[in-house]
Amino acid sequence: MKKIGVAILGLGAVGGSTYQILTRRREFYERTQGIEIEVESTLEPVRERAERLGVPAEKIAANIAEIVLDPDVNAVVECIGGVDVARKYVLAALHAGKTVVTSNKELIAKYYPELVRTAKMNNAGLYFGASCAGVPIVRTLLDGVQSNEISALIGIVNGTANDILTKMEERGCSYEEAAAEAETDRAAEEISINVEGIDAAYRLSILASVAFHTKVPAAKVFREGIANVSPADLAGGKELGYRLKPLAIAKRTKDSIEVRVHPAFIRQDHPLASVKAANAVFLTGDPVGDVMLCGNGTGDEPAASAIVSDLIFAATHGEHRYSAFGDTAAGVRSAVFATDFTSAYYLRLTVCDEAGALAKVASVLGKYNISIAETVQKRAADGKATLILVTHETRESLVKKAVAKLNAAQIAQVESVLRVAL
Amino acid sequence: MKKIGVAILGLGAVGGSTYQILTRRREFYERTQGIEIEVESTLEPVRERAERLGVPAEKIAANIAEIVLDPDVNAVVECIGGVDVARKYVLAALHAGKTVVTSNKELIAKYYPELVRTAKMNNAGLYFGASCAGVPIVRTLLDGVQSNEISALIGIVNGTANDILTKMEERGCSYEEAAAEAETDRAAEEISINVEGIDAAYRLSILASVAFHTKVPAAKVFREGIANVSPADLAGGKELGYRLKPLAIAKRTKDSIEVRVHPAFIRQDHPLASVKAANAVFLTGDPVGDVMLCGNGTGDEPAASAIVSDLIFAATHGEHRYSAFGDTAAGVRSAVFATDFTSAYYLRLTVCDEAGALAKVASVLGKYNISIAETVQKRAADGKATLILVTHETRESLVKKAVAKLNAAQIAQVESVLRVAL
Repeated sequence: MKKIGVAILGLGAVGGSTYQILTRRREFYERTQGIEIEVESTLEPVRERAERLGVPAEKIAANIAEIVLDPDVNAVVECIGGVDVARKYVLAALHAGKTVVTSNKELIAKYYPELVRTAKMNNAGLYFGASCAGVPIVRTLLDGVQSNEISALIGIVNGTANDILTKMEERGCSYEEAAAEAETDRAAEEISINVEGIDAAYRLSILASVAFHTKVPAAKVFREGIANVSPADLAGGKELGYRLKPLAIAKRTKDSIEVRVHPAFIRQDHPLASVKAANAVFLTGDPVGDVMLCGNGTGDEPAASAIVSDLIFAATHGEHRYSAFGDTAAGVRSAVFATDFTSAYYLRLTVCDEAGALAKVASVLGKYNISIAETVQKRAADGKATLILVTHETRESLVKKAVAKLNAAQIAQVESVLRVAL
Repeated sequence: MKKIGVAILGLGAVGGSTYQILTRRREFYERTQGIEIEVESTLEPVRERAERLGVPAEKIAANIAEIVLDPDVNAVVECIGGVDVARKYVLAALHAGKTVVTSNKELIAKYYPELVRTAKMNNAGLYFGASCAGVPIVRTLLDGVQSNEISALIGIVNGTANDILTKMEERGCSYEEAAAEAETDRAAEEISINVEGIDAAYRLSILASVAFHTKVPAAKVFREGIANVSPADLAGGKELGYRLKPLAIAKRTKDSIEVRVHPAFIRQDHPLASVKAANAVFLTGDPVGDVMLCGNGTGDEPAASAIVSDLIFAATHGEHRYSAFGDTAAGVRSAVFATDFTSAYYLRLTVCDEAGALAKVASVLGKYNISIAETVQKRAADGKATLILVTHETRESLVKKAVAKLNAAQIAQVESVLRVAL
């Protein structure tokens, strides 16, 4: 039976969970996969973590060199996080010809070309399924729908942001209130990575790169956080049958790629609308049509599942393959990134509650070729009315101009502008 | 560049679609997968089909022997359907060392052990992702969540049956009316395969075999069709927040495997509840948690997508691997199949509209250790009332006994009994 020696770098939540699964499932993997997976070594600066997991002393390495030089280690699992130490250690492992499996989205999003070059040169594998959401979407893109040209991919890839918007909707509470609750469990710094869409942008960068077979840098992802969302908008969208979700959207047209992370309305009957804290990716391919993959796990266990699945895959499928997006070879298309999006838009405006208010707004929008698809108007206090509009598809740049005009000409006070997906 | 020669057996809907994709995507697969896929030959008794697709005359084989003997053919795609001719041709291809990719669920459900034995002996691949639903669930089970112990898998794997129940619910129409509409497009024989759950049982047999690493014969699948579902039940379930779906359910406990295909209620907020004509599989694994995969395709294109994905996978991943469920080796657990299910149940009863009616029913149920979780009672005509009950989890055998007792003792007329999943 083939034997795989594994070293785990970092025994925090995901690394610790991976250690436990590999330890308790040995017999299961022997029986079902025909391979013996043995944790040979671990590296973790916080001594108590290794102790709490019951890692035997002889399996605790003093430094990365011990692991890199250990001939019994075939694969290195990187769960350190961040990019400084992680990058150094991963490169060292790859240089030593050891296959690397990582859950580190920032590392993959930022350094994939360098890492994959090193991996290829040393005939080592490089697997990163655990870096994208708690569902096996990377494997699906690589080996389940690889016969397809993928034209769009829309995901809810940050559980914290989705949880906050879900709470705001269900309770009618403010962003601050919902976010404060999320913060009790996490550091404020981590929250900002989630609510500002930074984490989602890394994930979208990786998913779009794999789906479109070309490097999509995280820096090219347009990003807008959820901190400015007001309960009034959640309620306004609801009236028209929409729900607000923190979406990561990647679209490929013949000429360009569009990647963006922002809150957006989707129809209440869209499969993504009922996804709560969980992760989900909805993709459109030819010939498969629409496929959605969703999971309830945003914690450590789904990430550990992905890590161990990658380890098994690496051990059981012959030569390593590398996602084309790290290549700069002529065969791989270089991408042009769209800067002006096409989308439908939701506008919430305050207008004077008098005859013709909607007509005046529509007239201004019409000058920018923006047509209204849905509208609802409600009386507010002080002789004012709230007007909610959803437009047909148009360009973001035109919406910005029209909004500026509406405000400047005092035809309406534009309270908020949000995108509507699909 | 690696070159793969393909022969397609059967140019009906799925085979024809596969031919078209392989023809129009050649450059795409060269660029993104690094392989050249060429259709070298086709076999199709209906001459017009090949002509309509524009298959060149030199690529139309006269018989299977031509294909089996053709050294340029590395892989054979089987889209004939049925098991007589298909089995013979597939075995011939495997004996010749050619990899087989098939969409034939009946063939895989019935003959997998023989086929996989032949494949292994001849070092040929055997791929059947296209046999199960229009979503890449087989690849996900094999390579996306293979690190998990799967405890349950619940699917909507027959689009026609789901479509009929959806129509009945949306329009409040009878089974006959909804089914007649489905029949206009299809032969009556094909409809019966769908509504009686025969097709779903083949699929469940394959999915459960892969998920549980053991052969789950289609004959072990408990099967109940949707023909007896009445609009009154759809409405009754709705009152309690449920929707009726044609489910394929596989569960593994420590001691046994439970596999069944029947209509069942699920909560309206369950992700499977909003799946309409499409296919979906919801699985529960440790450590991944719940993962759902759903697609909108029940037609030929998603099946063709799966076939081509399998072809690419076979060409790009070294040695062929075989799902353990064909093995009779000692390492593979032999399964015990449950015959008495545990489930929650929905009962619709007619009782006399008088004080204590519910209490009498509850008392009989209580004698069989069946407790009531939810109930709604409505006045009907002629001094009667309709009582709808959902029980807590219990055994099917106990429900049967309790129903017989209720009817015999004239405490209630049990109009229908349906299972409630989850």
